[in-house]
Amino acid sequence: MHPNEPARSEHVISGTGPSEADQDEYKRLSVNAAKGVGVVTAVHRGWDNAVTVTDFLSVSYDPPTILVSLYSLSRMAEALDEVERWGLSLLASDQRGVADALGYEGNPLVGLLDHVPHFRRADGAAPLIAGSLSWFELRTVAKHEVATHTLFVGEVTAMGRAAVATARPLIRFQSGYLGAGNELPANDERRPT
Amino acid sequence: MHPNEPARSEHVISGTGPSEADQDEYKRLSVNAAKGVGVVTAVHRGWDNAVTVTDFLSVSYDPPTILVSLYSLSRMAEALDEVERWGLSLLASDQRGVADALGYEGNPLVGLLDHVPHFRRADGAAPLIAGSLSWFELRTVAKHEVATHTLFVGEVTAMGRAAVATARPLIRFQSGYLGAGNELPANDERRPT
Repeated sequence: MHPNEPARSEHVISGTGPSEADQDEYKRLSVNAAKGVGVVTAVHRGWDNAVTVTDFLSVSYDPPTILVSLYSLSRMAEALDEVERWGLSLLASDQRGVADALGYEGNPLVGLLDHVPHFRRADGAAPLIAGSLSWFELRTVAKHEVATHTLFVGEVTAMGRAAVATARPLIRFQSGYLGAGNELPANDERRPT
Repeated sequence: MHPNEPARSEHVISGTGPSEADQDEYKRLSVNAAKGVGVVTAVHRGWDNAVTVTDFLSVSYDPPTILVSLYSLSRMAEALDEVERWGLSLLASDQRGVADALGYEGNPLVGLLDHVPHFRRADGAAPLIAGSLSWFELRTVAKHEVATHTLFVGEVTAMGRAAVATARPLIRFQSGYLGAGNELPANDERRPT
């Protein structure tokens, strides 16, 4: 047992399928997964699309491969269904404003990036977020539908960093952010009291 | 442009496919994705299997669905290929020792969890890590091969928490951990100077 004998909860989903209460409990528990914050970008029908994401992961080194999970009916999923090239930028701890600005898919595409510093590797390429810890240009190689979402799997075609090497990550946890500058060094051994 | 005009790097993968240097650069850049730390568990051929993971994500609320990406030739991937039920426990910031103890797949299965506090919902069910922020019992509903890895997609059948509500997450970043107790409050607005 944990030395502090924590309050433990248990919630079982009935075999007949999840109820609204099951989904609510899942939302409460799944936000305990801390996640780095990124921005997915693509040029679709001539417009820059960009949306803040937390549901992405590195799948493989060989070849370098990343996947992002997007709500299948979202604007960005529609864009990635139609264009093969996209970008992913990993936000630094000082980019909470970027995460917030691009966090709502209802934002008009007109002027979407006017106040978000960005660059691109070539005319017509996906915009990449200036100041990000790392950026990746990707080419979709597979798509998988899973429940309400689509997994877009991309192979990296180019990559780099756009922030100083000591920059720290922006992290989503529960209903807020962690990460604005006071993390522990990597080898810290302290424990919470 | 970013106001501090950061050092920016750029690395392009040639169309003939990734070289070892490309993979090395990808490793350097992809570890800038901060990730919560979890433990995947399963009972396979009578043995408790458990391995520390960072490559998992919540795919959907309806139904509650999680995926984990495992190296296809790993012991845990072999286990999940053969058993339908598994567990995922999200580690708290004071569980770095658990993450380290279960971080190597070469560990013998005999006694693997002897020094890791755990519980299970029923005889023969997957062990779950005591003191974890959240735990999930899952049933595999899909598998997708992606490059060197397999995505195991599971629907949640039961879930809960095993730590006090104020517990903080253990977070992997670059080659170390963040999270041992001094994070910012969620609504903090400070910026690094």
